Amino acid sequence: MSMTNASPSEAAQAAKSASHVLATLPASARNDALTAIHTELTAARDDILTANARDLDLARQAAADGRLSQSLVSRLDLGKKGKWEDMLKGILDVRDLDDPVGRVTLRTRLDDGLDLERVTCPIGVLLIIFEARPEVIANIASLAVKSGNAAILKGGKESTESFIAISRAISAALDKTQVPNAAIQLVTTRDVIPQLLDLDQHIDLVIPRGSNELVRYIKSNTKIPVLGHADGLCSIFLEQSADPQMAVDVIVDSKTSYPAACNSLETLLVQEAALTTIFPRVAEALVAKGVELRCDPGSKAALQDSNIQAADAADEDFNTEFLSLTLAVKVVSDLEEALLHINTHGSHHTDVILTSSSELAERFMSAVDSAGAYWNASTRFADGMRYGFGTEVGISTNKIHARGPVGLEGLMVYKYKIRGAGHVTAVYGEGEGQRRFKHEKLPL
Amino acid sequence: MSMTNASPSEAAQAAKSASHVLATLPASARNDALTAIHTELTAARDDILTANARDLDLARQAAADGRLSQSLVSRLDLGKKGKWEDMLKGILDVRDLDDPVGRVTLRTRLDDGLDLERVTCPIGVLLIIFEARPEVIANIASLAVKSGNAAILKGGKESTESFIAISRAISAALDKTQVPNAAIQLVTTRDVIPQLLDLDQHIDLVIPRGSNELVRYIKSNTKIPVLGHADGLCSIFLEQSADPQMAVDVIVDSKTSYPAACNSLETLLVQEAALTTIFPRVAEALVAKGVELRCDPGSKAALQDSNIQAADAADEDFNTEFLSLTLAVKVVSDLEEALLHINTHGSHHTDVILTSSSELAERFMSAVDSAGAYWNASTRFADGMRYGFGTEVGISTNKIHARGPVGLEGLMVYKYKIRGAGHVTAVYGEGEGQRRFKHEKLPL
Repeated sequence: MSMTNASPSEAAQAAKSASHVLATLPASARNDALTAIHTELTAARDDILTANARDLDLARQAAADGRLSQSLVSRLDLGKKGKWEDMLKGILDVRDLDDPVGRVTLRTRLDDGLDLERVTCPIGVLLIIFEARPEVIANIASLAVKSGNAAILKGGKESTESFIAISRAISAALDKTQVPNAAIQLVTTRDVIPQLLDLDQHIDLVIPRGSNELVRYIKSNTKIPVLGHADGLCSIFLEQSADPQMAVDVIVDSKTSYPAACNSLETLLVQEAALTTIFPRVAEALVAKGVELRCDPGSKAALQDSNIQAADAADEDFNTEFLSLTLAVKVVSDLEEALLHINTHGSHHTDVILTSSSELAERFMSAVDSAGAYWNASTRFADGMRYGFGTEVGISTNKIHARGPVGLEGLMVYKYKIRGAGHVTAVYGEGEGQRRFKHEKLPL
Repeated sequence: MSMTNASPSEAAQAAKSASHVLATLPASARNDALTAIHTELTAARDDILTANARDLDLARQAAADGRLSQSLVSRLDLGKKGKWEDMLKGILDVRDLDDPVGRVTLRTRLDDGLDLERVTCPIGVLLIIFEARPEVIANIASLAVKSGNAAILKGGKESTESFIAISRAISAALDKTQVPNAAIQLVTTRDVIPQLLDLDQHIDLVIPRGSNELVRYIKSNTKIPVLGHADGLCSIFLEQSADPQMAVDVIVDSKTSYPAACNSLETLLVQEAALTTIFPRVAEALVAKGVELRCDPGSKAALQDSNIQAADAADEDFNTEFLSLTLAVKVVSDLEEALLHINTHGSHHTDVILTSSSELAERFMSAVDSAGAYWNASTRFADGMRYGFGTEVGISTNKIHARGPVGLEGLMVYKYKIRGAGHVTAVYGEGEGQRRFKHEKLPL
C-alpha cells in the first residue's frame, strides 16, 4: 500500500498495472499477504493508536465547537473495547474464506476440440470512498487482496492520521509479499474525488460507503459503474393470519434492535382485518420500547380505546427512512395493496410479510421488488455476516451485478476462455456442407 | 406494446408497474405471449413491409443526397432475402430457451427453520436505445418478455415507419395475453433520450446498441447503470511455437471473415522469433485476401525480401479499431510484452494466443484482462449464438454484471428470500447464551 503523492491519474494507472499482477497470483500468495498485513498491524498497534488519538483530539475539539457530531467522534475511536481486536480478526476471517478467483461457472463443448469455459476473475481496480471509521481501511484492503482486485482508498478526512498509520503498516507488509505495493493505495490529498471519477479507463468500479448524498453525487459524476446502496426503507406487511406473538417479536426486533441501521423497519402496513386483533398488541410492545408511532387515520382509530399514544402520519412519513425510533403505520386492505405500497414507496432493500399462509407468503416474496423478500423473519437478517458471506462490502440496492448484502462474490466478474486447435468461424453455418456447433454442456 | 404519446416519465412509470406484473407471470404466460407476437407479426407481414418500403424510400433519397450511408440503407431493408423469416424464427427461438426466471443459485440454512435462498429474477425496466435495423425491435421485445423485464424502446429515426407497424402488431398480440401492454413501449418522439436518462427511479438498466459515441454519451448523462459495449480492439499474439498453417487459418478468419464486426482482429503481435519462420506466410495469406498491413519497423523488415506489400504503422494504429481490411502489426519479444501491449492498448474484448505450449496459453488466458481469452481459436467466436446462448443482447466490455456476449442471463438479477418462523436477530451473537448461526449449505 502506498500513500500516494502521485496525481490521481498516475495512482490509477499504477493500480491498474498492479491489478494485472494481482489477478494472476495464486490464492496462497494472496492469503500470505493477508497474514503479513495481520502481523504488521499487530506490531504497529501502539503507533496506530497514537495516531488515532490525534484524530480523536481534533474530532473532540470539532465536536465541542459543534462542527462534528458526537456519534462520529465515537465511531473514530479505534481504542474502544474490542474494536482493534475485531479489526485484526476480520483480516484472518477474510483470509480463511474460500478463494473466489478461478471458479468455473459454465463449460460448453462448442465443437470437437473447441471448449468454452466461464471462469470467475477479479474486476480490476476498485475505487472505494468511505467515511470516518478507521478500521474500514483494513477490512477493505483485506477484501481487495483476497478477491485479487487493486483498490484506491479515499477515506473521510477525520481519520487521516489513523489511515496513514494503518496504511504505512499495510505497505510494509505488502513489501514482503508477492502482492505489488501499488495494489492498495491510500489517497489522502483533498478534492481528488472528481479527478478519480473521471478515470474510467483505469478504474472499473466505484464503491461508496457513506450517505445517500455521497452515493447520488458519485452516480451523477462518473461514467464508472457504481456499487452503492442508497436508502433502506424497509416495510413489514402484517397480514391478518399472522401469529400475534410472532408479529410482536419480529416487528420489535426489526424496529428496535438497531434503529440506525439500513435494514431496520421504517413502515408497518397493517391489514384492515388485523387492526383490532393483532395490531394493538404490536403497538403496545413498540411504544413500551420507546417507539413513536406515526399512524394514518385508520390505524390511529384502532388504538383510540387503548392507552397507546400515536401521532398522525403525514404523507412524507411513508417515504422517509427515519433511522430512529419512529415508525410510520398504514392500513391496507389486502396483499395487493401492500405490494403496491411497498413497490412504490419502499427502497427495494428488504421487506417482510408476516402471515400463516404459505400461499400469500410465496406470492409476496415473488412480487415484491426488493433485494430481500422475507416471510416471518426480521428485516435485520439482511446482512452479509448473517447470510454467511463472512464479510460484507455493503448492501446494494442496485438492480444489476450484486443485490442485497455483497460479499466477496460481488467483487468478482468472469471471463470466457476458449481452448481450440486452430478453429475458425467461417466453416460454421446452417448451409449444406457447413459445420454445426455441438453446444454440449460439460460438467463443472 | 404501446406507441406512447405519454411523457417519458409517464411511460417509464407505466413500464415499472407493468414490470411488477410481468415479473410474477409463469413461464407459460410469457411463452404464450411470444407465440402470440409471432402469429400477429406473420399476419401483419404486408402492412409491415409496406411501412418498411416507405422508410426505405426516404432513406434512399437521403443516401442519394449524401445524408445517409448506403450501408445503413441496406440494413433498413426488411424485404431482403431471409431477413423477415429470420426475425420471425428468432421469436420462437427465444421462446424455446430455458426459462431464466426463478432459478435458485444459493440455499443456506441460517438456523433451524430459517432458510435463505437466492433466486434469479428480472431486473425490472430496461431502456434500449438502438439504431437503424428494424428487425431488432422484435428481437428485443422477445428477449424482454422471455426474461420478465419491461422495456422502453427507442429506435433510430430512419426506421420509424417500420417500428410503428411492428409495434402495432406486437401491441395487438399482447392484448390477447397476460403480459401487460405497457410492458413493451416504443417511444417515437424525438429528443426524449435526455429525459429518459434522468428517470433512474423507474428505469433500471440502459442498453445502448450502437456506436461508441452513443455509448459514451449515455454513460456521461445518466445515473442509471449502462450495459454497453464500447470498442472491439482484438489482438492475436503469434507465439514462436505456433503451428504455421493453423496461424494462417486463425488469423485470416479473425481478420477477414467479417471485418466490420467488433470481434474482428485489429492488431497482430508477432514474437520476434516467429518473424522469419511463420509471419511471412501469414502476411502473404492476409495480403492475398486484400488486407492492408501496417507494420512496425521490425515486422516490416521481416517482409523486405518478399513481394509482400506493407505500410508503416503509426502509433495510433495500435489504438485503432479499423473495422475494415486494415491490420496493425507489431513485434514483441515475448509473452509478457504481448500481455502488456494488449492490456494497455486493447479494449478488453477478445484476445488470442497462438502457441503449441499449453503452459504459455494458460498464462496468457489467466493474465489477459479481456472478456474473451482464447487459445488457438479465431477472435470471431466471441458471439452469443456461437457460445450457445441462443441469442445475444450485445457484447459487453463492462467489468461488472455481464461481460462478453450477453444472453438472457445478462437481463437477470437475483433476490434473496428468507423463510422463517418468527426469527429475530437480537438472540444471535458470540456471547454466552446467545444463538450461533448454522450457515449450512443446502443442495440446490
